[in-house]
Amino acid sequence: MLLYNSQVSGNCYKVRLLFAHLGVEYERREVDVADRSNRPELLGGLNPALRVPTLVLDGGRALGESGAILWLFGEGSRFVPSDAFERAQVLQWMFFEQYDHEPALAVARFWLRYSGRPREEYADRLPERTAAGYRALDALERHLDGRTWLVGDAMTLADIALYAYTHVADEGGFELDRYPAVRAWLDRVAAEPGHVPIDA
Amino acid sequence: MLLYNSQVSGNCYKVRLLFAHLGVEYERREVDVADRSNRPELLGGLNPALRVPTLVLDGGRALGESGAILWLFGEGSRFVPSDAFERAQVLQWMFFEQYDHEPALAVARFWLRYSGRPREEYADRLPERTAAGYRALDALERHLDGRTWLVGDAMTLADIALYAYTHVADEGGFELDRYPAVRAWLDRVAAEPGHVPIDA
Repeated sequence: MLLYNSQVSGNCYKVRLLFAHLGVEYERREVDVADRSNRPELLGGLNPALRVPTLVLDGGRALGESGAILWLFGEGSRFVPSDAFERAQVLQWMFFEQYDHEPALAVARFWLRYSGRPREEYADRLPERTAAGYRALDALERHLDGRTWLVGDAMTLADIALYAYTHVADEGGFELDRYPAVRAWLDRVAAEPGHVPIDA
Repeated sequence: MLLYNSQVSGNCYKVRLLFAHLGVEYERREVDVADRSNRPELLGGLNPALRVPTLVLDGGRALGESGAILWLFGEGSRFVPSDAFERAQVLQWMFFEQYDHEPALAVARFWLRYSGRPREEYADRLPERTAAGYRALDALERHLDGRTWLVGDAMTLADIALYAYTHVADEGGFELDRYPAVRAWLDRVAAEPGHVPIDA
């Protein structure tokens, strides 16, 4: 299998982290996250959104969207609950991540750290993303206060999906000091046997 | 069951449309989409994102995110394929909808039609959403050209999810004239036995 990958992308990291836990073998092809001019040539026909991660399976079938790739490999593993309601809760957090959390935390991080552009260029738009990011972190903190994992009593795809950009939130200018439950949960995810860091 | 609902919300319509197809019985409680001041009081503890749709099941368990609610009721029905790769493809389109399509088409529609604010207030931000919406529609057209449904050979949750805001794209200022495959697919979704319109 071939993973069109960006090493700094949290969305790609989700896939790499699950694959590490499951012992899935694959190759990587690194894709530029700042210069996207070759995306139609590279990913056209493979992923309607022309984004990474894009996974090409043995046999040539391709799949985009980190959440969909996680689901394909997570189903039947310990990372997807056997209970139907818990499965839906896992997806609730994965959709929350893509709608509320990632567009704030990941985009702020990209602008400030990986875009190669001066911060001033984003000055107009950054405050809105920062506020949205803190709202997402507030929601995460409220939910994790008193819980070990996001859903049920074991780590699931939801934890993998939310971990990816939360654990590098500081690169987008977010302070996690006021989120003790989030910080303890980040430590738990990182302490799971089989864990790999984002730069691995 | 109780659905916290907005009748004009495409995200809520997805749930209502699936429930109509499956004959699921539920009550609705209408939530204001413009004035969101009572959301913490209304939805706090039920949905971390404080958005509609939020579904409260018999017994009191609650679930947010249209995609998660669709999955809970779609699994085991004709709207979720039995093949694992096709299931992942359904989720690919549902994540594409929430990440690329909805934030463009639904937000432009909200600003122009349901916000109660003058168009000028959004003049700075509208062009970016309009461009993003057309990119999402282009991707949909390319994929649907030569296909009957988004995934496999039957209507799935992916079609329900993408139908919701595509069929009212004109309310956000989007012209569908140049998307013949999309328009034919919209007609097919609407012609399915059991279909209900957004205002039902």
